[in-house]
Amino acid sequence: MSKDKQVKNITSRDDDFAQWYTDVCRVADLVDYSSVKGSMIIRPYGYAIWENIVNILDKKFKETGHLNVQMPMFIPESLFNIEKDHVEGFAPECAIVTHGGKEELEDKMIVRPTSEVLFCEHFKKIIKSYRDLPLLYNQWCTIVRWEKETRPFLRSREILWQEGHTMHSTEQEAKEETLRMLDVYTDLQKNYLAIPVITGKKTDKEKFAGAEETYTIEAMMYDGIALQNGTSHYFGNGFAKAFDIKFLNKNNELETPYQTSWGVTTRMIGSIIMVHGDDRGLVLPPNIAPYKVCIVPIGEVEDTLLNIESSLKEKEITFTTDRTDKSPGFKFAEAEVKGYPIRLEVGKRDLENGYVTIVRRDTLEKIQVTVDECINKIEEVLSDIQSNLYNKAKERRDNLIFEAETYDEFINITKEKTGFIKTHWCGDVACENKIKDDTTYKSRCIIDENSKGKCVCCGKDANTLIYFGKQY
Amino acid sequence: MSKDKQVKNITSRDDDFAQWYTDVCRVADLVDYSSVKGSMIIRPYGYAIWENIVNILDKKFKETGHLNVQMPMFIPESLFNIEKDHVEGFAPECAIVTHGGKEELEDKMIVRPTSEVLFCEHFKKIIKSYRDLPLLYNQWCTIVRWEKETRPFLRSREILWQEGHTMHSTEQEAKEETLRMLDVYTDLQKNYLAIPVITGKKTDKEKFAGAEETYTIEAMMYDGIALQNGTSHYFGNGFAKAFDIKFLNKNNELETPYQTSWGVTTRMIGSIIMVHGDDRGLVLPPNIAPYKVCIVPIGEVEDTLLNIESSLKEKEITFTTDRTDKSPGFKFAEAEVKGYPIRLEVGKRDLENGYVTIVRRDTLEKIQVTVDECINKIEEVLSDIQSNLYNKAKERRDNLIFEAETYDEFINITKEKTGFIKTHWCGDVACENKIKDDTTYKSRCIIDENSKGKCVCCGKDANTLIYFGKQY
Repeated sequence: MSKDKQVKNITSRDDDFAQWYTDVCRVADLVDYSSVKGSMIIRPYGYAIWENIVNILDKKFKETGHLNVQMPMFIPESLFNIEKDHVEGFAPECAIVTHGGKEELEDKMIVRPTSEVLFCEHFKKIIKSYRDLPLLYNQWCTIVRWEKETRPFLRSREILWQEGHTMHSTEQEAKEETLRMLDVYTDLQKNYLAIPVITGKKTDKEKFAGAEETYTIEAMMYDGIALQNGTSHYFGNGFAKAFDIKFLNKNNELETPYQTSWGVTTRMIGSIIMVHGDDRGLVLPPNIAPYKVCIVPIGEVEDTLLNIESSLKEKEITFTTDRTDKSPGFKFAEAEVKGYPIRLEVGKRDLENGYVTIVRRDTLEKIQVTVDECINKIEEVLSDIQSNLYNKAKERRDNLIFEAETYDEFINITKEKTGFIKTHWCGDVACENKIKDDTTYKSRCIIDENSKGKCVCCGKDANTLIYFGKQY
Repeated sequence: MSKDKQVKNITSRDDDFAQWYTDVCRVADLVDYSSVKGSMIIRPYGYAIWENIVNILDKKFKETGHLNVQMPMFIPESLFNIEKDHVEGFAPECAIVTHGGKEELEDKMIVRPTSEVLFCEHFKKIIKSYRDLPLLYNQWCTIVRWEKETRPFLRSREILWQEGHTMHSTEQEAKEETLRMLDVYTDLQKNYLAIPVITGKKTDKEKFAGAEETYTIEAMMYDGIALQNGTSHYFGNGFAKAFDIKFLNKNNELETPYQTSWGVTTRMIGSIIMVHGDDRGLVLPPNIAPYKVCIVPIGEVEDTLLNIESSLKEKEITFTTDRTDKSPGFKFAEAEVKGYPIRLEVGKRDLENGYVTIVRRDTLEKIQVTVDECINKIEEVLSDIQSNLYNKAKERRDNLIFEAETYDEFINITKEKTGFIKTHWCGDVACENKIKDDTTYKSRCIIDENSKGKCVCCGKDANTLIYFGKQY
């Protein structure tokens, strides 16, 4: 099948968003399937996006004093059972190793769905004194959650992620850490992925199993549905008590430390696709694209190509050059499917007329410039694409944020549109459940706990300003 | 326990090498144990060494045209069973997932011990034409081999590694790739880890399950015992045939492609410890050390410290400054245990006399220089430590390489010393087995297949020049 045909085979985004998403993942060579049900192969182009995310975050984690470690990937069942809320939350989706080296295991092993208990066991051994605190750890690894229904990047049995785990001598310091890492995630979303997010606190019903408070960054996809793109948890000292972790404070008294954890996953790649992509395929923000520029030569232009390539290298602008013997039309279509921010057409005839052509992926606008001007223009256009994508996403999202004061209003919005609903809530889980049962909308996050109003569901006094929305 | 005491608690290297090794791993904060039997926690200082190795290799892999991908961590048993030699080699040490999400799995899942079959299944789908070749892939991930006896870094149930998997249209190209990656590994060993290696081909008995040829880099530890530090396999088209992978060549005819795979693991960290370490602890080559310099302030010297730190940053020399309230003696001992290549003592009284002190970890030599001269001197000393460590290791190794022409000579060497024995071998596995049974020496690698001589074991004509040695 030719690439042109493949492109035509992308379902229209407005006709069937779910199918459009799967098509883009496949046609842009981001993932492939295998005989391992529920898992995906992340292909080089998809993995390169993840590598960029890893590099950006890893640098920020290190700048904020965090150290990388590597814990075992297995958790003995007996260890997992120590923190009760945690077990209840994760047990239904665990993968269990029962045999190793042809023998049945006495203590079965859970393939880690998250590593709190492993970190806690280790922390108990290495934390002795206030001098050991804060302990700021992070781990890049794969986790397993045995999901029934899976979709590339969004919901997979194996997930690539990072999990930060930190211990602090005071509650305040731990809470500050929780919010600091939420800021790091927000910055990544905004300035690299070009995705506007709403940040806030999860309700008790939606928080992480074992956490006191869970903070979240909520992005809205093109179809108005929410994607939870990262979470940061404040644990208080629940785990620390369950694991009997103690430290000697400056007065030589034993105290229990306070804990956080925070993580983001390859799911973020799904959000890049679903926020920026269009009917021609992927659209990548320059700050996260594996290649910012795709050069397409037309005819014999090798000398000019080499000059342009060396200038791009000098400016550290990543690029790929399509030197295959495919037709220019095929190459253009492929460049669009892959979402390279800029396609640079270098044609023999155009060069004779003194110009090359910059094609923006976001607007499809064509800009003719001389070879001499082209590098500067590329830099300028890349910066413009980055901000344009963010602004477009923000505008679309803001148009899909609705406010409701009464339950009738709420219900009507959910019937007519798909988006976020900003409203007041009394804090009662019964109202949260009723809203979900009536509309499938779940609470996204609390953005203000001191906002006077009436609960949109029961009409009682409410102090909580909160977003509701459908979710992936 | 004070750090001084901990240092004293390192067993002498010459008294009990195995215990010395375990002590260093623990006291230098490289690893910790957990309730996950057979797995280790890689602590930040150990993991930082691995991150340096990853960065060096990943850059080289990309420079040589390789792309990173991510395959599932599970392999369905039915898929694993396709290549028979491969199954037989790995089945005894597999960890098996039998339950997922509270249900028993129909097709049990093996936690990957290596990923050839997953890559083959994927290759079959994406390789259509000669235009798709060569396909040069690499994966950084964790594998599981259910070892009975484990030791930190050397033998662990979970192993961090990279696995390269490539497909080529010709036998010759695949063989060149196999050797190219062996060279990449040799360069890492020599120029970063400061470890001299012997490279060559494994015997049929010792080659990788499913490979036609396995090449290896063999390092010698301080105690004369070999550590296989990386392997590169040429597969011919055995897997490709088993998985029915075919491509259309330029003449539009179907052909079977040729395959390689190659990998190195965290085991290399074990070799750094066992080649360079001493009774005071770890000794790290500057080119792989997480921190090249450890600054120890003595008294009130903050202004000078800040100047030195900013100069080191400018020169991109990594460092750590021990600003804790521990005693200088404690800090010196800890800097030695951790193997920082240079300890820089910045003392108030010394400064008044116009100098700071550079202490080399490899020779323990102390060098007094003025603050102005110190950065240049540090650069010079780091370069000297790097080559000194390599030369020392090479000298020691060369002194432990023996030659044997008769079986009596061979036996006598193994009784008196531990090292490598370079000798002739007829190629018969019976002789290889006899040598192993009589001496515990196993074949390390073949370095010449056209060297005339007599087999050291049976006395028959032999064309194979080969190394034997004990192994970790």
